[in-house]
Amino acid sequence: MYPLRLLDRSHFEKLVGIPEAIEGVEQAYRLFSRGEAGVFPVIVHQFEPGRREMDLKAGHLAGAGVFGMKMLGWCAENPARNLPPLAGLIIVMDVDRQQPLGILDGTPVTFLRTGAAGAIGARTFARKDSRTALIVGAGNQGRAQLLGLSFAMPQLETILVADILESQSARFVEEQQALYPRFKLQAVPFSGLSRATEESDLIITCTRSREFFLKKEWVSPGTHINAIGADMPGKQELEPALVASAKVFADSATQVVAKGECQHAAKLGLVPAERITEIGTVLEGMKPGRLSAEEITLFDATGMAIQDLMVAAMALNRAEKKGIGTVVHF
Amino acid sequence: MYPLRLLDRSHFEKLVGIPEAIEGVEQAYRLFSRGEAGVFPVIVHQFEPGRREMDLKAGHLAGAGVFGMKMLGWCAENPARNLPPLAGLIIVMDVDRQQPLGILDGTPVTFLRTGAAGAIGARTFARKDSRTALIVGAGNQGRAQLLGLSFAMPQLETILVADILESQSARFVEEQQALYPRFKLQAVPFSGLSRATEESDLIITCTRSREFFLKKEWVSPGTHINAIGADMPGKQELEPALVASAKVFADSATQVVAKGECQHAAKLGLVPAERITEIGTVLEGMKPGRLSAEEITLFDATGMAIQDLMVAAMALNRAEKKGIGTVVHF
Repeated sequence: MYPLRLLDRSHFEKLVGIPEAIEGVEQAYRLFSRGEAGVFPVIVHQFEPGRREMDLKAGHLAGAGVFGMKMLGWCAENPARNLPPLAGLIIVMDVDRQQPLGILDGTPVTFLRTGAAGAIGARTFARKDSRTALIVGAGNQGRAQLLGLSFAMPQLETILVADILESQSARFVEEQQALYPRFKLQAVPFSGLSRATEESDLIITCTRSREFFLKKEWVSPGTHINAIGADMPGKQELEPALVASAKVFADSATQVVAKGECQHAAKLGLVPAERITEIGTVLEGMKPGRLSAEEITLFDATGMAIQDLMVAAMALNRAEKKGIGTVVHF
Repeated sequence: MYPLRLLDRSHFEKLVGIPEAIEGVEQAYRLFSRGEAGVFPVIVHQFEPGRREMDLKAGHLAGAGVFGMKMLGWCAENPARNLPPLAGLIIVMDVDRQQPLGILDGTPVTFLRTGAAGAIGARTFARKDSRTALIVGAGNQGRAQLLGLSFAMPQLETILVADILESQSARFVEEQQALYPRFKLQAVPFSGLSRATEESDLIITCTRSREFFLKKEWVSPGTHINAIGADMPGKQELEPALVASAKVFADSATQVVAKGECQHAAKLGLVPAERITEIGTVLEGMKPGRLSAEEITLFDATGMAIQDLMVAAMALNRAEKKGIGTVVHF
């Protein structure tokens, strides 16, 4: 018998916020570059493409003494049924004893660690004088990205928000403006994306698109792009020529070529793997990041199990100290 | 929010026994052969080979409307720490809503579904007039295999038990004889394996060996062998020539070539993939099983996620009806 701690959304939200998530995800990226963490091949299964999909990410973090996995399911019809579209679980296990330590609701961890990934990408690669950011995709991930930016890029002034459903971006701005009084939030029409793009120093794409909507000609020199949405075969947000013209960074080079934004440019032979630099190597000072104010930089993030595991392990650690969560004996 | 049911060992043992596990595993094998179930590539990580290992098996069962995964860790030092060597969890998810249905302790499910696999292998391929069975490996899996045989092969009379640690086989016989008064259990020395093998109609190997110990010349015509132990790269119980001389059946041809007993014979070019018949195709009547009383048949079982998921889903179903388990809201 061993104790197994369960953390639901409300438990998790009491334990880890965006600053801690950023710290954890940065640590995961660094350990990965140092060879002290690894990810296993991601398993993706599309029961009905664009309607019912699952993915399973697993990995290990020698540095933190944990390993485990996250399994998420996504169903497009769920909101109409009054159910969350995305649901799943994270299991954290202990390397030494090879036993489960805890189980967490996978969605709040995913929300926070993806917001953290965007924040780290922006902080590492965007120009320090960035003033205007554009978020394309006014859904939950748009919220996570804004939360990340608010912590990592306080110098921003204007946040433009676009969504293919204009009611979504309007609602997003109305709801989120109150949370971030420091920023000026503004909904922009999806049809006017070219102008919004030109004005932006930082662009974050976080949609479920399967066709690119961001064209190379719209993006000004010096822009940094966080490509967050494409994380499965078939998903796409950027014109391949834009990817090819940018200096490309990734969470995992293997993953982004297989199923991130880079999958398309790679298939066309436009982005050879040796042109993709992993963010951990930049954070560790092993490789350079942005070299000039004119470069277009791109951070392609597909999400790695070690991000989830690091954030989940932090939460479990704190939960144990504070006596938070439901403990069952297995 | 959705309800999530947790079943620990004591819950599970109230819900599913060996007859139900055999029914579930047989159903999983059949659905797999009909293309109504699938498994994803197994993830194996040896933190320290032979001391700390994990594996993660995932799959889906369209027929049963569920998918999910099992993650197990194994640590050789745990018994000395008064901890179970094997521990882990199973997550069952619902295909329609893509949400978790429940979490189960992975070890009792693994115990029962592996016993069921052996039982189905024996019932399907062993000669009906089999009287003597030999179990090599007097550990937990030996117990599971004996439990499976007691249900599926009631015609057996003598069960020989061998283990490289002779105290283990003596203890096994003493403890298990009381549970199965119908059988005559008898410990045989590991050094006398050649004689025990010759006398046996049915041989079950379920050790953690990494070198073969069962030689071709010891096995009599007409014998059926269940090769249960080898389920990771590097594990081995049978001489490759023995595998090559047998009519080979498998749970999954892909898995047994990658990491089952067949890995070694396949590497030596002795067992081409087209010579391996999946058990589900035999159960479904698509392919023949044993054709004569002289053939040596071999069932190589590495364990498939769909076995665990089917048995776990049965348990969750019954648990819901009977109100058993711990329900948390996630």
